[in-house]
Amino acid sequence: MNALKGNAIIAQSGGPTAVINNSVAGVVSRWLKRNSGGKMYAGLHGVKGFLEENIIDLAEQDPKVLQGLRYTPGAGIFSCRYKVTDQDQEKIVDLCKKYDIRYFFYNGGNDSMDTAHKTYLAAQAAGYEMQVIGVPKTVDNDLPVTDHCPGFGSSAKYIAASVMETGIDLQSVSTKNKVTILEAMGRNAGWLTAAGALAKRRPEDAPHLIYLPEVPFQQDQFLADVEKVYQALGVAYVVVSEGIHDDKGNYIAAGGSIDAFGHAQLSGAGETLKRLVEENLGIKARCNTLGTTQRSAAHFASKTDADEAFSSGQKAVDYALAGENGIMVTLDRISEAPYQCVPGKAKLSDVANIEKKVPLEWITPGGNNVTDDFIRYARPLIIGELPVPMLNGLPDYVWIDQTRGRVKK
Amino acid sequence: MNALKGNAIIAQSGGPTAVINNSVAGVVSRWLKRNSGGKMYAGLHGVKGFLEENIIDLAEQDPKVLQGLRYTPGAGIFSCRYKVTDQDQEKIVDLCKKYDIRYFFYNGGNDSMDTAHKTYLAAQAAGYEMQVIGVPKTVDNDLPVTDHCPGFGSSAKYIAASVMETGIDLQSVSTKNKVTILEAMGRNAGWLTAAGALAKRRPEDAPHLIYLPEVPFQQDQFLADVEKVYQALGVAYVVVSEGIHDDKGNYIAAGGSIDAFGHAQLSGAGETLKRLVEENLGIKARCNTLGTTQRSAAHFASKTDADEAFSSGQKAVDYALAGENGIMVTLDRISEAPYQCVPGKAKLSDVANIEKKVPLEWITPGGNNVTDDFIRYARPLIIGELPVPMLNGLPDYVWIDQTRGRVKK
Repeated sequence: MNALKGNAIIAQSGGPTAVINNSVAGVVSRWLKRNSGGKMYAGLHGVKGFLEENIIDLAEQDPKVLQGLRYTPGAGIFSCRYKVTDQDQEKIVDLCKKYDIRYFFYNGGNDSMDTAHKTYLAAQAAGYEMQVIGVPKTVDNDLPVTDHCPGFGSSAKYIAASVMETGIDLQSVSTKNKVTILEAMGRNAGWLTAAGALAKRRPEDAPHLIYLPEVPFQQDQFLADVEKVYQALGVAYVVVSEGIHDDKGNYIAAGGSIDAFGHAQLSGAGETLKRLVEENLGIKARCNTLGTTQRSAAHFASKTDADEAFSSGQKAVDYALAGENGIMVTLDRISEAPYQCVPGKAKLSDVANIEKKVPLEWITPGGNNVTDDFIRYARPLIIGELPVPMLNGLPDYVWIDQTRGRVKK
Repeated sequence: MNALKGNAIIAQSGGPTAVINNSVAGVVSRWLKRNSGGKMYAGLHGVKGFLEENIIDLAEQDPKVLQGLRYTPGAGIFSCRYKVTDQDQEKIVDLCKKYDIRYFFYNGGNDSMDTAHKTYLAAQAAGYEMQVIGVPKTVDNDLPVTDHCPGFGSSAKYIAASVMETGIDLQSVSTKNKVTILEAMGRNAGWLTAAGALAKRRPEDAPHLIYLPEVPFQQDQFLADVEKVYQALGVAYVVVSEGIHDDKGNYIAAGGSIDAFGHAQLSGAGETLKRLVEENLGIKARCNTLGTTQRSAAHFASKTDADEAFSSGQKAVDYALAGENGIMVTLDRISEAPYQCVPGKAKLSDVANIEKKVPLEWITPGGNNVTDDFIRYARPLIIGELPVPMLNGLPDYVWIDQTRGRVKK
């Protein structure tokens, strides 16, 4: 089929990753290279910004800034967390008509793919011809169909390095705090927590225990696990997901407000385990809460991950111009050794709002570690280091100029 | 004077740094190069291990391991936290006699320099000729006399990068958590917390507020500060020391919520500020607690810092063989622009147990930030990146073989 004439737009949504802007760079560079004649807009601050007609023409940015997106963390064209209403959906289609947008690229995770899917349906319902393509990103790695998600590899690499480094710290100076707990992100899916396992090289290396939200957390078992490791090694290193919960679904964490999508906001699983260890076992413990460092540490991003994020963006444009619609780009692993991954596609309806968790067969029977199958799956994703230019001892990240190429309302 | 004939020993004490093992590598390589004929022993697990005669001959290690100490975090020859008694001191001197140790190198911070000083005094009192030289290390940067301490630059670089990256994250997706708090180490001295200021390039960049233990923390003022930044920027980024306290000296670190197990939650300064913001200002906040990552992140260590740690070790040997005794190696800044630093020396009696804090004139009048004088001081210390070899996507750190070159009791 012939490609539609018209403009394109890309927007980002949800929590950023260290390599999310690679996907924007991939979309923009491919679009400009294919030279379809249309503009490549950015909707700043995601769909919420688009609804407010906060739009710029990305081709007007300094080429150095567009290039800099390839190593800059955070949401380069700004993100939002916003659940679109039916009314919003109609308005989105109206705005696409207004700005002659025929290609709608949405870069995000589960919730964002839901937004993209609804936009696809709304355009269909309005009889407006527009290609809607999802470009995946999420450190949580919980999108279905795709082998893995751009963003996960870099966070996994950073978490594994942090476990390795703080594990060496613990094991080399074990006379005060004898238990270290590292809390990783992941409300319902334990992919990032499991990534801590990549740090272990010798049998005695950290991490010794890993607790994922896929398995109900049992306090007594946890304390017995820590005690056992401590008796054997004199120390214990625990990686825990922020989202661990008991068999009734109650989070093992203090606090609990609700975000725009109705998800519980957590903090404190790691601190809670630290206290359990100190109070019940009488062993001094320490908790490292990586927080947003684990999704923004571009100074130690995975080259493999960054390249895949970029090629996912490129492929999104190719799919769009080939007439694909209502799909998300996927990463399909076609070879294990050597690792090879190529872009594929999935229907948005098959990915929206569906969470892929760590398979139970990749979790050890005791529920306190992951198997070699997980290691084989995750290892290739952390290979290589993304080069980042430095300025005065720190990364030379870029910011989009929000005043350049601003599209008149 | 002629150098004493005999063996040497080095031991490490206290919390490690990302570059602490550079100093050991500097001591060992210089000692072997100067070829005085004596052995270079390591007392494993600091002075405590030495008291247990846990000693190896470092020349017996695989040269690759000795080289690997130049990029491996943690205490490469293991550390301890142990306050020596008068009896211990006598035993230390007896053991030095037993193993014909005439050169005693101790690698650590304030407490360690106290141990070194006491060892020096004990040898003098016993009429035993032995050179005692302190080799400084501490991320806390709180040793007096020296311009700065090996270890500080690397932690400062890592903290500044973390503030920069999570600051970009906050400012690019500001629709949920609008305040980010990063807690840095430093119970009494705010050097590491102040280092967060290095992240700021544009006026609106993170960090916006910095709270050091040098200034009593005032809750009302803090809330007013955050509110003011939030009103201006829509977000606020706060870096806070774990050791902030009120004007009576009480730590701002005890919270009041109850966790899933019904325990009162006691949390750190960062978590406490997060709760203060949420409860008093009604703004969602997030806390990143870097913990031991900030003192072990060799994957992003400062080349300047690593080189200075190495040359401090080398200089310690030169001082010892030149007959110096009862001193600590210092770093003396002899030029600001270009930055130039050379090794110097200080009496152990002038550094033991004395903490150097951030000068009050480097803290802004509002007590919520640092001045350009601090930036000028700290910037040169974070320049350059330490190259670290990689294996399977993660740093290829080394471990000393504790069985090799073991010295018979």
